[in-house]
Amino acid sequence: MFRQQTDKRVAVMVAPGLEEIEGLTVVDILYRAGIPCDTVAVSDTAEITSSHEVRIVCDTTIGEADLDSYDMIVLPGGMPGTKNLAACEPLREKVSEFVATGRQAAAICAAPALTLGAWGLLSGRRATSNPNFRQVLADNGAVVSDDPVVVDGNVITSQGMGTAIDFGLEIVRHYLGEDAVEQTKEKVVYR
Amino acid sequence: MFRQQTDKRVAVMVAPGLEEIEGLTVVDILYRAGIPCDTVAVSDTAEITSSHEVRIVCDTTIGEADLDSYDMIVLPGGMPGTKNLAACEPLREKVSEFVATGRQAAAICAAPALTLGAWGLLSGRRATSNPNFRQVLADNGAVVSDDPVVVDGNVITSQGMGTAIDFGLEIVRHYLGEDAVEQTKEKVVYR
Repeated sequence: MFRQQTDKRVAVMVAPGLEEIEGLTVVDILYRAGIPCDTVAVSDTAEITSSHEVRIVCDTTIGEADLDSYDMIVLPGGMPGTKNLAACEPLREKVSEFVATGRQAAAICAAPALTLGAWGLLSGRRATSNPNFRQVLADNGAVVSDDPVVVDGNVITSQGMGTAIDFGLEIVRHYLGEDAVEQTKEKVVYR
Repeated sequence: MFRQQTDKRVAVMVAPGLEEIEGLTVVDILYRAGIPCDTVAVSDTAEITSSHEVRIVCDTTIGEADLDSYDMIVLPGGMPGTKNLAACEPLREKVSEFVATGRQAAAICAAPALTLGAWGLLSGRRATSNPNFRQVLADNGAVVSDDPVVVDGNVITSQGMGTAIDFGLEIVRHYLGEDAVEQTKEKVVYR
């Protein structure tokens, strides 16, 4: 069962062709830690199909959701999911506003480069991404790191499906601190 | 895109209340490696809701699927998903037949204990599970291991969501060998 530990809410953006584990690992980890989290389809319909042909029915759609009711927007990678996120102008506007006004943005795999980087939100910031997209980060002024997860101010970035648990745990650390991270790691048998 | 590397097929059983990352990480990893894999709902309907309230639409249902067309049955954990698997008599019969006749069974988290163990399929075999269920393994005659993933003959067991990538990679190793494992690890940025 869900035991809510904070009134801050997280939106995981789920575009057609997303890397489903990058998105859903965040949902899973936050649920376990007690952080409210919704899946928001970047689509006209709540049901989307992932890059590995998994069909997911989201909690809401970007047309119906009030993104201002969230404290963090999470951008998973995957192809063509990341391109679908990057092409969504209302999403670009809202994430840009979040980053400018001290709310939180988090992106993993291709998304740090093709969304946050391409949108001009990483200039002068430390960030990481999937190795195949590091040049895009650099071209957009980021200070590129090879750490699995990088926090710079109110922006969290990470590398890929294989670092998705660390990415989710960093969000737990942000809202609830280190003890909650350790408890969550134990629950999922992560060493 | 999917580039098929084997004619062997894998069925991931998706019961209501499953730990979705344990099931879907296998789907993701096998898709990337080119191993055909279907999600099979252990339910009358293809759509199920996970233990963390994620709605997934499966490829087929246990009533419609021909489990004999698969070479491996994968049993994810989660609550009450694992209990729903354990209570499914046609599934118990089919997995028992697979284990007895040299086809493959794989289980993670609570499932090694509450399905394979409770069904009498681990007697004298090395196996692991979520730490909370190790006593059930032992009570059913398994030789309990603390390794993240254990292979004993045609049965693979693993510990939990935090070991799901290793669990998926072990299935890749079984069908395609070590080079395919290394290539898949690189694709998902897993070190």
